Amino acid sequence: MKELFLLNKDITYLNFGSFGACPKAIFEDYIAWQELLEKEPVQFVTVDGLKYINKSLSALGKFINCNPKDLVFVTNPTYAVNLLAKNIVLNPGDQVLSTNLEYGALDRTWNYYCKKQGAHYITQPISLPIVSKEQFIEEFWKGYSEKTKVVFISQITSTTGLIFPVKEICEQAKKRGLITIVDGAHVPGHIDLDLSAIQADFYTGACHKWMMTPKGCSFLYANPNLQHLLDPLIISWGYESDNPSASQFFDYHQYNGTRDFSAFLTLPKAVEFRDKHNWKSVSDQCKATLLAHVSKLFDLLQSKPLAPLNKAFYGQLCSFEIDTEKPEQLQRILFEKYKIEIPVMLQGPKKYLRISYQAFNEVAELDYLMASLKEISADKALLNI
Amino acid sequence: MKELFLLNKDITYLNFGSFGACPKAIFEDYIAWQELLEKEPVQFVTVDGLKYINKSLSALGKFINCNPKDLVFVTNPTYAVNLLAKNIVLNPGDQVLSTNLEYGALDRTWNYYCKKQGAHYITQPISLPIVSKEQFIEEFWKGYSEKTKVVFISQITSTTGLIFPVKEICEQAKKRGLITIVDGAHVPGHIDLDLSAIQADFYTGACHKWMMTPKGCSFLYANPNLQHLLDPLIISWGYESDNPSASQFFDYHQYNGTRDFSAFLTLPKAVEFRDKHNWKSVSDQCKATLLAHVSKLFDLLQSKPLAPLNKAFYGQLCSFEIDTEKPEQLQRILFEKYKIEIPVMLQGPKKYLRISYQAFNEVAELDYLMASLKEISADKALLNI
Repeated sequence: MKELFLLNKDITYLNFGSFGACPKAIFEDYIAWQELLEKEPVQFVTVDGLKYINKSLSALGKFINCNPKDLVFVTNPTYAVNLLAKNIVLNPGDQVLSTNLEYGALDRTWNYYCKKQGAHYITQPISLPIVSKEQFIEEFWKGYSEKTKVVFISQITSTTGLIFPVKEICEQAKKRGLITIVDGAHVPGHIDLDLSAIQADFYTGACHKWMMTPKGCSFLYANPNLQHLLDPLIISWGYESDNPSASQFFDYHQYNGTRDFSAFLTLPKAVEFRDKHNWKSVSDQCKATLLAHVSKLFDLLQSKPLAPLNKAFYGQLCSFEIDTEKPEQLQRILFEKYKIEIPVMLQGPKKYLRISYQAFNEVAELDYLMASLKEISADKALLNI
Repeated sequence: MKELFLLNKDITYLNFGSFGACPKAIFEDYIAWQELLEKEPVQFVTVDGLKYINKSLSALGKFINCNPKDLVFVTNPTYAVNLLAKNIVLNPGDQVLSTNLEYGALDRTWNYYCKKQGAHYITQPISLPIVSKEQFIEEFWKGYSEKTKVVFISQITSTTGLIFPVKEICEQAKKRGLITIVDGAHVPGHIDLDLSAIQADFYTGACHKWMMTPKGCSFLYANPNLQHLLDPLIISWGYESDNPSASQFFDYHQYNGTRDFSAFLTLPKAVEFRDKHNWKSVSDQCKATLLAHVSKLFDLLQSKPLAPLNKAFYGQLCSFEIDTEKPEQLQRILFEKYKIEIPVMLQGPKKYLRISYQAFNEVAELDYLMASLKEISADKALLNI
């Protein structure tokens, strides 16, 4: 399977989750778009490219089950959440309810925009291990108050790699009259994604992780009834356009100044790649293999699963809380000495080792990771097991 | 010369100005960076790529004569000006002084952010034709009042293709205590650019036009004394960073979420390409050829130059005011029937045909354009000459 990718074969690559990796077939499609752009930049950027973007949005809408008219491509979920946080008007004292397990860049984003408005970003503590969906939901809503206006929550968390029950959260948030924003950075192509079922007001996902497009291809979905809330993050020709298209949402957010938007155009090829290689079953196999082999890692690391070890909570990511005084050095030694690419991540006071298990990974690589960790643990400051 | 580019040879390409065009050698460098990224995404995005960006900023700083520490790469000047307009605090009644010949996307940007703050974007009318530098400068300052806080001005305008005396404007603005922002979208690689001489507080330029990098490579320069005014346009890990670098300016604006930043990395290759092909002299030759041949076009179009026909006002762009009732259709016919890529642009009530003259263009193409325009003018609604 590694033959399908451009990845360096000398590296045990257990960090697909951070930035994905682009299969050769999709990468070639990317280059072909870039060449086409350079053959006639004016026609591509101003005429044909817009048609290609729309085709690509249609393929995406079909894949995640929503109307493509409610989608725009963005560079990454960070862009999307900045767009939302900048636009959603909060009154002094208002609260944005989230968890203490969100992505650090977006914690920064919400803190920044809440502070500007005298509002508060509430990172409701979630007890780990999570015992059940019900317990998670109950605990999440303990952060609710009559000042809560917005719910912001990951569908799959970055550091802990856990799946959260966002469908239920959105349903209950709606009953309370809240705006719901889901960070699905790790979701598309990783676990089934059905936007019509989740019914979030706003949803962002990265396609350059588990959909395997080149970097810089992500999307923002916005409920058509709330699109009017969103001014562009970058004002350009699409704002108060001289030649408006049928969609103000598209005009506002898809025009962004001159850029190479080829990554957006690889989405149909990424879907085709999944179909051709029966990727859903490849992914299911990865999840099963990972779940079948993590127990020995939890044992080695003297750590407990962060949630019940089943597919309600786990996909192709699994994080292990570890005891280390030198998290950065641990990650560096794993890479430099053992040629293992795996992140050691911080969330609050805790440190986690996160495995991504992708099609090209093998059980032998998990064994090699274990053997390496054992060796490293000779220095207890690096890894105390 | 066209052999050096990827451009479609069937097209008479007289619109280099809008989106540039990337020579094969620079395009190959682009692809090589993208492949390197895909070989080890984590190392590239989080470790090596940052070093490459800094090398690229150094090459840029040398080329435009400023400290690379005061530069960050941005996708395009629209991004840079949005960043500035969002951050510069204006009081109700304050004014941003500009001209009536600025780029439409940025007129929108200033109007948007001024309106939000109860401030005013003043587009001082510039009489055309411009008679002299002195007259331009005098006329520009007629838009000044005690409420003026910021000057925003193009160094080379988009629609009219004229060079403005921004060095003098910045010098005088500084004496009046104003913040100066120069839009140099069309400048780098087109005319000599020396940031230390211009002394603007903020300067943005596109490298994907006349520097010939791939699309999405531009820069923002900020005076070190004013960098503290700028929060990130996109809040990410670099804001209140856990691991700050030596430069908060870099941390704030260079971290932007996951994206393919390969375009930024082609800058050294773009400089090397210029050196190898003695591009300064190629460009000088283009300017001389253009100036030597535009008189017959002005005659044909019964139009007058918009400024004295010399290199103080003209580079490789020349715009002709034309009389057309159907500007969009005129442009379409030129492309579809005659295979000439040339823009028909609107600025206020006026319409302009803009020629870009680049290394691969030939005088015969100007003759062909003239013959085509003559034919088209059989329909006076399309072109009244």
